Amino acid sequence: MQKPLILVCNDDGITAPGISYVVQLLKNFGDVAVVAPDKPQSGMGHAITINSTLRVNKTNYHDVFLEYNCSGTPVDCVKMAVNKLLPRKPDLCVSGINHGSNSSINVVYSGTMSAALEGALEQIPSIGFSLCDYAHEADFAQAEVFIKKIIADVLKNSMPLGVCLNVNIPKLKADEIKGIKVCRQARANWVEEFDERKDPGGKPYYWLTGKFVNFEEGNKETDEWALKNGYISIVPTKADLTSYESLIELKSRYNEIGSS
Amino acid sequence: MQKPLILVCNDDGITAPGISYVVQLLKNFGDVAVVAPDKPQSGMGHAITINSTLRVNKTNYHDVFLEYNCSGTPVDCVKMAVNKLLPRKPDLCVSGINHGSNSSINVVYSGTMSAALEGALEQIPSIGFSLCDYAHEADFAQAEVFIKKIIADVLKNSMPLGVCLNVNIPKLKADEIKGIKVCRQARANWVEEFDERKDPGGKPYYWLTGKFVNFEEGNKETDEWALKNGYISIVPTKADLTSYESLIELKSRYNEIGSS
Repeated sequence: MQKPLILVCNDDGITAPGISYVVQLLKNFGDVAVVAPDKPQSGMGHAITINSTLRVNKTNYHDVFLEYNCSGTPVDCVKMAVNKLLPRKPDLCVSGINHGSNSSINVVYSGTMSAALEGALEQIPSIGFSLCDYAHEADFAQAEVFIKKIIADVLKNSMPLGVCLNVNIPKLKADEIKGIKVCRQARANWVEEFDERKDPGGKPYYWLTGKFVNFEEGNKETDEWALKNGYISIVPTKADLTSYESLIELKSRYNEIGSS
Repeated sequence: MQKPLILVCNDDGITAPGISYVVQLLKNFGDVAVVAPDKPQSGMGHAITINSTLRVNKTNYHDVFLEYNCSGTPVDCVKMAVNKLLPRKPDLCVSGINHGSNSSINVVYSGTMSAALEGALEQIPSIGFSLCDYAHEADFAQAEVFIKKIIADVLKNSMPLGVCLNVNIPKLKADEIKGIKVCRQARANWVEEFDERKDPGGKPYYWLTGKFVNFEEGNKETDEWALKNGYISIVPTKADLTSYESLIELKSRYNEIGSS
């Protein structure tokens, strides 16, 4: 039987420790192809490159079957891999492991999760992994037993159409991780604070900073609760932004509006 | 009574005809503040600028109460406006009018819709408008009577918490537009085709191109159907990507996984 073909992407860039860690792990599951950004692309969300051009370069950081860096965003990487670089459609797409949380509202800003979502749009079973630790020397191996089981399950049982997994791992020692909770995205937001500075010429510039605010503190259905209470959170995630619960109200408000 | 404060953003850039058109229209409804990208930012999705800095410059393209261009993405513009530049929280956020469709899956790639979503995350009633016509000389006025009625309604009746409107307008003459349909996002995707070229040094580079594929052709519940049949489509849109219909299956697959 043919070995599974596994596409790996991320948003921290092709040389980040998180992608190295997961690539080595994935070699136990199949042939690994890496197509990842040539520089950090955190916060790029679902951006694609349409006003400029893309470059790809063959690289060999991870000793895998096929590897390219790409000048574009994480979503560009997945599109390039699937439509141009890979010999066939991959059996699995893994994005990450991200350095830092992609739980709750972070999912919309995250290049890592957008790459996984793009995989799902291409009808590839896809997983985005994130560790809630921004440190360069973060220890990805603490959750290894769970990461392996999730990968094995998705390879075996696939995913519902268009759905990928948003897996977030708390920053804990292996024996402190209580297990896995499948949950929904918490309602939360960033309250921005712009750090204003002056350049050498005296002109102002800004760094985007912010404070995370969870509007559902204590709600056990949410990913934030799972992470805070020692669980790995898994949110089934898809690119349908329709607010179904608002359809009836809005139909009554707008469907009868005419031009006169 | 205080006049409403209306924030306007887009992704085609502050000098695009679509934003000019809507700014002039919005002057009939309140005090307009424009904070928009200093260059085209189409396809930027929900990207934010975290690895580099932001600049803003006072400008005066539209003769409004307050206007800045911003070096960042559409989402950066909204964050900057709300948290730094505006005297108070706006009563309405309008993004657009976009040159080109943001229906169905386009919503995740669209900077215009991400700006509207960011407005909704900031708990501001928000609308993204798009005209299904990429031409620079597109005629935004054909749907004016509907655009005005939607704006008036949102100012008067607000929006459900966290929900914004994704309004797409078909490329039709005023008397051909049949009305408004509130609907859900169609399941569709782009099938990419990378246009490979060679630079003067002989090295390859790529342009992202693609073909839109609607998986729900003929489904009257969808925005694509509405647009194809002469209606303005409105999809209530929010930043919750949870696939609720997958929760039960995935709980049974993952909640019992342990570390042994």
